[in-house]
Amino acid sequence: MTNQKMFNVAVVGATGAVGEQILKLLEQRDFPVAELKLLSSARSAGKTLMFKGREITVQEATPESFAGVEIALFSAGGGVSKALAPQAAAQGVICIDNTNAFRMDPETPLIVPEVNLDKLSDHKGIIANPNCSTIQMVAALKPLRDRYGLARVIVSTYQAVSGAGQSAIEELQTQSRQVLDGEPAEAKLLPVGSLPVKHQIAFNAVPQIDVFQDNGYTLEEMKMIRETKKILDDESIDVTATCVRIPVVYGHSESVYVELKSDYELEEVKQLLSDAPGIVVQDDPEAQLYPLATEAAGKPDVFVGRIRRDLGHTRGLNLWIVSDNLLKGAAWNAVQIAEHIALTQE
Amino acid sequence: MTNQKMFNVAVVGATGAVGEQILKLLEQRDFPVAELKLLSSARSAGKTLMFKGREITVQEATPESFAGVEIALFSAGGGVSKALAPQAAAQGVICIDNTNAFRMDPETPLIVPEVNLDKLSDHKGIIANPNCSTIQMVAALKPLRDRYGLARVIVSTYQAVSGAGQSAIEELQTQSRQVLDGEPAEAKLLPVGSLPVKHQIAFNAVPQIDVFQDNGYTLEEMKMIRETKKILDDESIDVTATCVRIPVVYGHSESVYVELKSDYELEEVKQLLSDAPGIVVQDDPEAQLYPLATEAAGKPDVFVGRIRRDLGHTRGLNLWIVSDNLLKGAAWNAVQIAEHIALTQE
Repeated sequence: MTNQKMFNVAVVGATGAVGEQILKLLEQRDFPVAELKLLSSARSAGKTLMFKGREITVQEATPESFAGVEIALFSAGGGVSKALAPQAAAQGVICIDNTNAFRMDPETPLIVPEVNLDKLSDHKGIIANPNCSTIQMVAALKPLRDRYGLARVIVSTYQAVSGAGQSAIEELQTQSRQVLDGEPAEAKLLPVGSLPVKHQIAFNAVPQIDVFQDNGYTLEEMKMIRETKKILDDESIDVTATCVRIPVVYGHSESVYVELKSDYELEEVKQLLSDAPGIVVQDDPEAQLYPLATEAAGKPDVFVGRIRRDLGHTRGLNLWIVSDNLLKGAAWNAVQIAEHIALTQE
Repeated sequence: MTNQKMFNVAVVGATGAVGEQILKLLEQRDFPVAELKLLSSARSAGKTLMFKGREITVQEATPESFAGVEIALFSAGGGVSKALAPQAAAQGVICIDNTNAFRMDPETPLIVPEVNLDKLSDHKGIIANPNCSTIQMVAALKPLRDRYGLARVIVSTYQAVSGAGQSAIEELQTQSRQVLDGEPAEAKLLPVGSLPVKHQIAFNAVPQIDVFQDNGYTLEEMKMIRETKKILDDESIDVTATCVRIPVVYGHSESVYVELKSDYELEEVKQLLSDAPGIVVQDDPEAQLYPLATEAAGKPDVFVGRIRRDLGHTRGLNLWIVSDNLLKGAAWNAVQIAEHIALTQE
């Protein structure tokens, strides 16, 4: 590794929930970092963060911040990415964007390394990291698509509050204490910070993640529908989604119903999933073993269990898919992409 | 009402979470009670409960307890119902059973009054109250079945801990405090009291309700599958279910995907649901209005929202169905049945 190329890396949104995990992963994975720039909004600039024992001061992200940077990981919201990633890309920076800003842009590859790494080299400076709830689902669907073909996907999600950021975690904790103490729960942020109506998340299930579209679906649901088709490169797959926030801190769970295009053997499905990269099968009813958000939290894998045939439709299959939304759903997928870029540029 | 017939009523399992709600409803609804017997296991016998200002001592339920009783409401577990309901019925008692003991018995009608009241008179002494998660779903499906026919139902549930009784509520509360205080969560009861493995329910989503069957489905899931077909009197409907316990105290939520047999207009679906008895439509994305467990708790209705067309399948429809699992899901449905029996015997 003596000749390994080192990269000047910028993390935009370094002080956020995902940014924090990106930093941790770059350190744990010993990513070949030459210089590390930590960037953020003006509000968080001036804070210091630790990386490999060194203190680094967070700077406000501006177009000028990217001079000399080779790889930038963005997770500071869609607005920041829209404003800065194209300018950074124009300066030759390879931008890995964790926001919704460019995911459906036909020029931008939308990458889950286990699924469509072959599209990575199509990038024109920006590579999009998919939505958290999409990533874990397509990672599990990929081996099934390859073997049987996918006709239909019907997903209902059980999503953690950390997907809405650190302040949503604090809201869940505060409300939980209030309810346990017999006090009214104060809802200040969820379901959507920018919208007027707030709903209690503690001890509740809220079927709204992100804003509503004209078709009655939320943006989160439309992300799952559109991104799944784009990543699997197949507009013919029928995908529908119901996205629900529940009082969980880390780890999205998903009840996924799949209708395959051809008949299958259940044991083969389990074997295909067990053999798939990034997937861990946890499926032993007798031992009461199945994926759980609390167990998936902090781990990079996508856990799949409750694998069983639809008793009515022979090509129907139920899956329970769980992963840490901040890791495979965000930071780890982004760092995986960065690692593949680093490999191709060695 | 001066000539109204009064009934000697027994409540079996009077000290449980559902029994408590049954008592409350009998009182609130001013059910024509002549004498009220409160029965329970030996463990709870001797406790006293209030009914219409009178203190009533709970007695141990034995075959002899039913002498003179005309209507008995059972919610003390399947074992008690199996042991006592047939003997009570043989003595002429009309038994409304809230357990799983007789639901799939071909001799026993399985009744949701809004759906199949016509089957009530078929009873041979025992009438079964369906599973909580089934009741709210079929109540909402009924008007759609009548108008369009049902081809397929794919449901994922978000179920409250109160469905597992008072001690499960306490477990959720205790664990929630433990996690908030940074202590390890002690799992003693859930997911299934009689099974060896326990999982944390606080800040988690546990895809196991009741024991596993040989086919990989849980008993709760099989209840939803079998009971839905029986209540809707149509074995040809394909039903599949994934049942999940989440950290909610009262109110089951369900993400229900329906494939209808004929094309539909979305506005007509909303109108049919609005007009259906026992159903309240809460569906206004702009106002962020949709059913929520915390709002449904304490109310007898079934709330339906997030009503939207599957963008891929023109006959596919997504619904979000929420109801208080102890009320319409249990006590209220049972008391409704009792009211209909009382009416037919006036």
